[in-house]
Amino acid sequence: MAETNDSRFTVPGLSLEDGHRVGAALQERLHTLNDLQLTLKHAHWNVVGRGFISVHEMLDPQIELVRGFVDEIAERMATLGVPPNGLPGALVATREWDDYDVGRGSTQEHLAALDHVYNGVISSQRDVIGVVAEIDPITEDMLIAQTGKLELFQWFMRSHLENDAGELSD
Amino acid sequence: MAETNDSRFTVPGLSLEDGHRVGAALQERLHTLNDLQLTLKHAHWNVVGRGFISVHEMLDPQIELVRGFVDEIAERMATLGVPPNGLPGALVATREWDDYDVGRGSTQEHLAALDHVYNGVISSQRDVIGVVAEIDPITEDMLIAQTGKLELFQWFMRSHLENDAGELSD
Amino acid sequence: MAETNDSRFTVPGLSLEDGHRVGAALQERLHTLNDLQLTLKHAHWNVVGRGFISVHEMLDPQIELVRGFVDEIAERMATLGVPPNGLPGALVATREWDDYDVGRGSTQEHLAALDHVYNGVISSQRDVIGVVAEIDPITEDMLIAQTGKLELFQWFMRSHLENDAGELSD
Amino acid sequence: MAETNDSRFTVPGLSLEDGHRVGAALQERLHTLNDLQLTLKHAHWNVVGRGFISVHEMLDPQIELVRGFVDEIAERMATLGVPPNGLPGALVATREWDDYDVGRGSTQEHLAALDHVYNGVISSQRDVIGVVAEIDPITEDMLIAQTGKLELFQWFMRSHLENDAGELSD
Amino acid sequence: MAETNDSRFTVPGLSLEDGHRVGAALQERLHTLNDLQLTLKHAHWNVVGRGFISVHEMLDPQIELVRGFVDEIAERMATLGVPPNGLPGALVATREWDDYDVGRGSTQEHLAALDHVYNGVISSQRDVIGVVAEIDPITEDMLIAQTGKLELFQWFMRSHLENDAGELSD
Amino acid sequence: MAETNDSRFTVPGLSLEDGHRVGAALQERLHTLNDLQLTLKHAHWNVVGRGFISVHEMLDPQIELVRGFVDEIAERMATLGVPPNGLPGALVATREWDDYDVGRGSTQEHLAALDHVYNGVISSQRDVIGVVAEIDPITEDMLIAQTGKLELFQWFMRSHLENDAGELSD
Amino acid sequence: MAETNDSRFTVPGLSLEDGHRVGAALQERLHTLNDLQLTLKHAHWNVVGRGFISVHEMLDPQIELVRGFVDEIAERMATLGVPPNGLPGALVATREWDDYDVGRGSTQEHLAALDHVYNGVISSQRDVIGVVAEIDPITEDMLIAQTGKLELFQWFMRSHLENDAGELSD
Amino acid sequence: MAETNDSRFTVPGLSLEDGHRVGAALQERLHTLNDLQLTLKHAHWNVVGRGFISVHEMLDPQIELVRGFVDEIAERMATLGVPPNGLPGALVATREWDDYDVGRGSTQEHLAALDHVYNGVISSQRDVIGVVAEIDPITEDMLIAQTGKLELFQWFMRSHLENDAGELSD
Amino acid sequence: MAETNDSRFTVPGLSLEDGHRVGAALQERLHTLNDLQLTLKHAHWNVVGRGFISVHEMLDPQIELVRGFVDEIAERMATLGVPPNGLPGALVATREWDDYDVGRGSTQEHLAALDHVYNGVISSQRDVIGVVAEIDPITEDMLIAQTGKLELFQWFMRSHLENDAGELSD
Amino acid sequence: MAETNDSRFTVPGLSLEDGHRVGAALQERLHTLNDLQLTLKHAHWNVVGRGFISVHEMLDPQIELVRGFVDEIAERMATLGVPPNGLPGALVATREWDDYDVGRGSTQEHLAALDHVYNGVISSQRDVIGVVAEIDPITEDMLIAQTGKLELFQWFMRSHLENDAGELSD
Amino acid sequence: MAETNDSRFTVPGLSLEDGHRVGAALQERLHTLNDLQLTLKHAHWNVVGRGFISVHEMLDPQIELVRGFVDEIAERMATLGVPPNGLPGALVATREWDDYDVGRGSTQEHLAALDHVYNGVISSQRDVIGVVAEIDPITEDMLIAQTGKLELFQWFMRSHLENDAGELSD
Amino acid sequence: MAETNDSRFTVPGLSLEDGHRVGAALQERLHTLNDLQLTLKHAHWNVVGRGFISVHEMLDPQIELVRGFVDEIAERMATLGVPPNGLPGALVATREWDDYDVGRGSTQEHLAALDHVYNGVISSQRDVIGVVAEIDPITEDMLIAQTGKLELFQWFMRSHLENDAGELSD
Repeated sequence: MAETNDSRFTVPGLSLEDGHRVGAALQERLHTLNDLQLTLKHAHWNVVGRGFISVHEMLDPQIELVRGFVDEIAERMATLGVPPNGLPGALVATREWDDYDVGRGSTQEHLAALDHVYNGVISSQRDVIGVVAEIDPITEDMLIAQTGKLELFQWFMRSHLENDAGELSD
Repeated sequence: MAETNDSRFTVPGLSLEDGHRVGAALQERLHTLNDLQLTLKHAHWNVVGRGFISVHEMLDPQIELVRGFVDEIAERMATLGVPPNGLPGALVATREWDDYDVGRGSTQEHLAALDHVYNGVISSQRDVIGVVAEIDPITEDMLIAQTGKLELFQWFMRSHLENDAGELSD
Repeated sequence: MAETNDSRFTVPGLSLEDGHRVGAALQERLHTLNDLQLTLKHAHWNVVGRGFISVHEMLDPQIELVRGFVDEIAERMATLGVPPNGLPGALVATREWDDYDVGRGSTQEHLAALDHVYNGVISSQRDVIGVVAEIDPITEDMLIAQTGKLELFQWFMRSHLENDAGELSD
Repeated sequence: MAETNDSRFTVPGLSLEDGHRVGAALQERLHTLNDLQLTLKHAHWNVVGRGFISVHEMLDPQIELVRGFVDEIAERMATLGVPPNGLPGALVATREWDDYDVGRGSTQEHLAALDHVYNGVISSQRDVIGVVAEIDPITEDMLIAQTGKLELFQWFMRSHLENDAGELSD
Repeated sequence: MAETNDSRFTVPGLSLEDGHRVGAALQERLHTLNDLQLTLKHAHWNVVGRGFISVHEMLDPQIELVRGFVDEIAERMATLGVPPNGLPGALVATREWDDYDVGRGSTQEHLAALDHVYNGVISSQRDVIGVVAEIDPITEDMLIAQTGKLELFQWFMRSHLENDAGELSD
Repeated sequence: MAETNDSRFTVPGLSLEDGHRVGAALQERLHTLNDLQLTLKHAHWNVVGRGFISVHEMLDPQIELVRGFVDEIAERMATLGVPPNGLPGALVATREWDDYDVGRGSTQEHLAALDHVYNGVISSQRDVIGVVAEIDPITEDMLIAQTGKLELFQWFMRSHLENDAGELSD
Repeated sequence: MAETNDSRFTVPGLSLEDGHRVGAALQERLHTLNDLQLTLKHAHWNVVGRGFISVHEMLDPQIELVRGFVDEIAERMATLGVPPNGLPGALVATREWDDYDVGRGSTQEHLAALDHVYNGVISSQRDVIGVVAEIDPITEDMLIAQTGKLELFQWFMRSHLENDAGELSD
Repeated sequence: MAETNDSRFTVPGLSLEDGHRVGAALQERLHTLNDLQLTLKHAHWNVVGRGFISVHEMLDPQIELVRGFVDEIAERMATLGVPPNGLPGALVATREWDDYDVGRGSTQEHLAALDHVYNGVISSQRDVIGVVAEIDPITEDMLIAQTGKLELFQWFMRSHLENDAGELSD
Repeated sequence: MAETNDSRFTVPGLSLEDGHRVGAALQERLHTLNDLQLTLKHAHWNVVGRGFISVHEMLDPQIELVRGFVDEIAERMATLGVPPNGLPGALVATREWDDYDVGRGSTQEHLAALDHVYNGVISSQRDVIGVVAEIDPITEDMLIAQTGKLELFQWFMRSHLENDAGELSD
Repeated sequence: MAETNDSRFTVPGLSLEDGHRVGAALQERLHTLNDLQLTLKHAHWNVVGRGFISVHEMLDPQIELVRGFVDEIAERMATLGVPPNGLPGALVATREWDDYDVGRGSTQEHLAALDHVYNGVISSQRDVIGVVAEIDPITEDMLIAQTGKLELFQWFMRSHLENDAGELSD
Repeated sequence: MAETNDSRFTVPGLSLEDGHRVGAALQERLHTLNDLQLTLKHAHWNVVGRGFISVHEMLDPQIELVRGFVDEIAERMATLGVPPNGLPGALVATREWDDYDVGRGSTQEHLAALDHVYNGVISSQRDVIGVVAEIDPITEDMLIAQTGKLELFQWFMRSHLENDAGELSD
Repeated sequence: MAETNDSRFTVPGLSLEDGHRVGAALQERLHTLNDLQLTLKHAHWNVVGRGFISVHEMLDPQIELVRGFVDEIAERMATLGVPPNGLPGALVATREWDDYDVGRGSTQEHLAALDHVYNGVISSQRDVIGVVAEIDPITEDMLIAQTGKLELFQWFMRSHLENDAGELSD
């Protein structure tokens, strides 16, 4: 892609440097959550076994939600003056992990694999909250709200894996 | 109820101890707001006098809201790895106050009594915000949003009790 | 709670005594179903295991329904001239059973426990139908309609516990 | 109006005589409830004073409900083979009471007067329930459901007139 | 009904006398259209023969509309300072016509009879438009809009009675 | 079909024998109303002549209603512990009547034939009400409500066949 | 604000002069109704006392309506070729009255003050109707419709202030 | 088309001659607005250039509106006893203008051409208002309302063509 | 209309010549269905007699559908690079038939005439399907779907004209 | 059933013979899919075991869909001039298979049995597609669309039966 | 306006002084955002030129949003015990800026001017966030959420003014 | 990703080999359209200049549509027994093109670039239609419907780039 420079402006009340710093931090979130929405859809199609319909349907509202987060993050970047990159080549070139590695698999297999994916997504999301909190409470607030929803869904998934003693099967 | 231990996990990015500490703090909120929804319904049925229909109907959306808060808190506890207890026996055994003490009563009598109830609920909610703010911004954000809605409704009730000089009749 | 006496009226066509007798019988229903809605929510949060999402979601419409029954019963009491008591302290002081005794538990464990709860709730509901049928067909009709919905939901729960031979696992 | 004879049929399972007896009993209900919907609208327009908007708006859903009852009764008559008469001349010629006697009046004045109207409407409705119960459970069930709704609304009105001791001001 | 005097006010910009004159003219409209809504419902129930369902269903939206006109007129009267009378006894005592004279009858018989009713209702509505047009354009505008809708519905009815040559059968 | 025995349970408050007796009585209703929904659809497609569109469209909401009754009855049977049979082979083997005998036919021909079908369906429905009333008021209430809707629709059909004198053409 | 001249066009069928004359007359309506929507919201927030919730909620739909009138008027001005000015500085510089003078106040105090505001708004609206009626029936029709809605709402407010004798308390 | 004569009736309160005169005047409106809806759709499909999507979408609600006007006018004609002709051959044979002469064209080209079309449509609409105003206020009111909506849309179009000085480019 | 040439492009995968050939074939469909929507509306207004309301209302959804087909066809033409002409002058100049020749007429007369119109519309639609099927499956699929809907509606109309023996009256 | 002959017409563009041939082929589809909707409902009621609620609810939208297919097919037959037979006696007499042979059974048992049913339904549906494709693309298109939806639902069912290796348990 | 003192209360958990300090800070926000909603509507009416409809329509949802913020702020003030002043005279007397200075103007002119307005509104909003953050997290959270929405809309406006290099034209 | 083999089944009526051949062809469509939805969102965020809001909003419904196509294709693959791969690594490794190469850019620049993207997507889609048409009409039909929607949207984009002569600027 042809190089795109940051805008000559950012949101009122932030210095140009601060605004763009926050925007840059969000680019990594954008790739992570874009990857997540694709992975969730992939699991939606490839899950099999007794609990098929429940898990298949449970994933769809979460996918809608994550797509909304992607949109929110990209528009926040543009608002801060940093052009968002939402393309798959850039995503793959930048990310530090490989494609999700389950194809056709049982509900428990997919839920356990996705639980691991969520561990990574949420931890790094909390890291970015720490970074932006110093600079921009508006972005911080957006990320906090997203994290709450991601954690709630992780609880849905974990509840399928958990036993009476509160231990996760894997 | 048979003893239920905390889960062997909590949300990613928090230590198990921190996660369970926040969850434990929320159990008290769960009992408080569960008591509140029951009390508001009780008032909804027992209010009498000239302003009956207005007050009777004003309470219902607030009850729906508070029930939603209860659900949000309990699912946040489970997300943090702490099993929520939503049963009336546990509520009564734990709480530090008695049943609301108005039966059939006039609109002003109920509104004044509920205003007192709200003083307690909101003060303790703000205390818990202080506790969790150090540890978990996601839980903090949830409690702040709830507090704003509770305070708004308290204003509705107080406006019925207030005179031109801004003094509350009781 | 301060003592609240019955009203000096009841519905047209019933004697004051009969109206208040029916109202009094409904107070017990109010506590029972208030307990039930709290118990169902508690199970909604604490269920775990493979069928989590199905059972978690199956409970919510039933909770809405039972809350509606509670409202209906309380307003019928007030209509009959008897002030309803919907507070948890009174509930616990009056009831003849203990808190539901499952915390975090598998779907089958919760469904079996709730099936037992329903046995009690429905049997006593049918007893009250017998009592009021002599006096007030309007209250009788309300309770019959509620019973039908409770039995239908019990069938939902039992269907998870039933084998091909029509036997319930427990 | 030109004379209209009963049909040569009634619902299956009832004798022609029984079916027409029930239909005839419903004609009186039709006039009574038609009068009631007109009276409630009249009050809706003529109420004044501090609680105006609450009482004005509280009446409208009840009017819709009563109009629905009128329709239900008239179509039940036709179903039973008895042509319903819904005309004002016949109503006035048949009824045993005079027009409602409040014009412009305060909310409390209208609510007290309507409470008296409801005493009459509900008592006679219960009488007719007794008559038809012997013959036709379908008609009985319809009248019971209507009575429950009328009594609930009477409670709404009475709650405006009631004091803490459960006494109605008049 | 106890005598109700006109209010000590009318709408701004009209003299008290003019305002009350318009209000008084509307009382006659109120009775006429109240009679009409009752008559249309009566026909809705009593129509029989091949076109039953079409005519039965065609009448209902018109009844809703006419009921809306009644409400509009009565509230305009009150706005002008004249208490509206919407009671059946007053209607029958005041009107210059008898009850509609068809009971059970064929679709064509009812439509022809209602077409005659509409001739009267619309002619007198146009007369009142002439009267109020001099004084109050707001009331005039309301009556014009109502008349347009009444004439449209009369066309619906006449279209059932009309032959290719544009002649009405009767 | 492989033999399916009754469950080892029924609804709380009924003896196993009584519960299964009611369930068995409902199997006959299930076949009857399943046959009815198919017959009504058949008529919906095969009606011709001047009133085509009215009758064609009038039937559809009734079909939806009857399908709902079938579902209600079958789920009541299962609730009572008796497995419902909803298959066409069993229906035809069990029923005591032949297929509806009108193919392409005029609106009046179909309505007259369906009126006869309704005579049978409603009479036998009232018989079953009598049987279950002794044992189970919940089932009784369900059947009464269904009967009221069936009779109302029969009135719709009969109104097309009725003359001014209240006689049905056939 | 930089001077904005009228457009070189107006609606077809009116002379440029006439079109702009009507547009100019509407500018005064725009300021008046813009002031009104702000004043109604101010009252919505500052009302206190027993009838709080009723009056607080009664004002909101009226505010929506008045905002709609403002929009309609401004767009009519633009249609006629006259640029509307909707800014607060211009409003205050032009108007011939001061800010509404009630802050926190009881429901009756606010309703009485708003009743006076409506006297002024409606009288001047009727004056403008007279002016435009000669020139442009489309604008006239728009203003008549708005006036009818304003008068209806004034009746709502006056009904709170009115006694049985039709006298307004102040 | 075979000759169709006027009906032997018109609306109550108008002479047959007056009613048919108004109806005849409306036939010309019917052709004009039928032509307009077709022309607007044609422009909707043929517009090109930078503002494509805005103008393409802006036209559709206006087309729906104009189709509604056509329907209103035709049904008013029928109500007045004059059979409306809505056929394209009659339209083309009667109209005094040619087909719209822009095919594929830029947004500005189409908007300028449509602005001219609206000049004609609105001027002649105002002429007909003058004609019918003498005879029939109901028809007059309908045409005034339509004109207001047409003028508003012309403003939308002109606003695309207007510069800061209020001059239209063409 | 000024001459409009075809675009320099067509859809990917078709040659320019093939794309424009399909587009040209659709122009004839556009005129035919535009004529049809106008004719159906004309019939909607001019139908009279006993079945008026049924036929009047049955036509409207079909008109909406045909208008949708016109839009679909015109936008497909533009997509293929051929500017659609939707103007009445071009329609009349091009078509090979005259205006529909029924004015005010009975339901059966209009339905029989429209049945003939549909014979022509559907036959020619099937011819065009044959032409485009060779070249462009996307256009073919669109026309097949439209034809199915047109044939279904023709069945509605024919069912009014058909006797028990499956013969059409004319 | 009395013999019903084919109509003397079919859709325009098909010979009478071809049209009726397609119609006849559809009669077999009508019985097959009618049987299928009844079978799916039967399974909906009789399924038991851990996944009860998921499978019970998954079946209902499919039943609605299949009922819609039945309606579509029957109305296509009538459109083609062949009277559809939708009665259970004819179905059973004609079909080449027996009633579905599972009563109360586990989710996996029912899904496996229904998977077999779908194998038959879909294979024969594809056969009929081959037959009609030669003659009538409109009917072909309808059957292709239905087949796609049936195959999608079969995938839902199979996904419950499938293991990681893509093998179906039975 | 008559002086209105602060209430004798504030929200539980804040000192009276702190609560009123936050309330006072919000009064300035109230005037600023009230001015903004009026200015945005003014621009909505006065924008002209090629992009008219897009910009005209883009402004409306933002106006709704800003009106909602005004309401939220005023009700928060009242909740905190400080009576909000929403009147235009007070606004103009208090503000430190003049009326927006564009009348009729091109889309780019208005967007550039509004972009400057937003710079001011957002900067001062962030300042107030800093002030209240120390005292009241509930108010802080409300202002953060509003700021995020204002910044998003500023991005919409800036995107119209921005070139490929991220520079704003002015 | 771990290797996933094709299922041991495919849809009834296709050979295993044919079913899997079609499924394999669809994998390429899945990657192509997944890339397209990401690219369209990227453009949605990065477009700037005068037409910003129109183009920004025009893209969103298309993105929803393309996401729906992706889902449809993937579920068709699974139905055919071939596990769909929806992951970005696989997409990038497989595709034969690079990331879209416009970052922040004007509306015309993005529309021209997307027009080129659509040329590729649609051409290859038509190629696959040719491949599957031989084997599976259900898959063919799905792809034809998608292609029609893609071509329609390409027309939307091209219309922004087209001049009066039907030439595309680039």
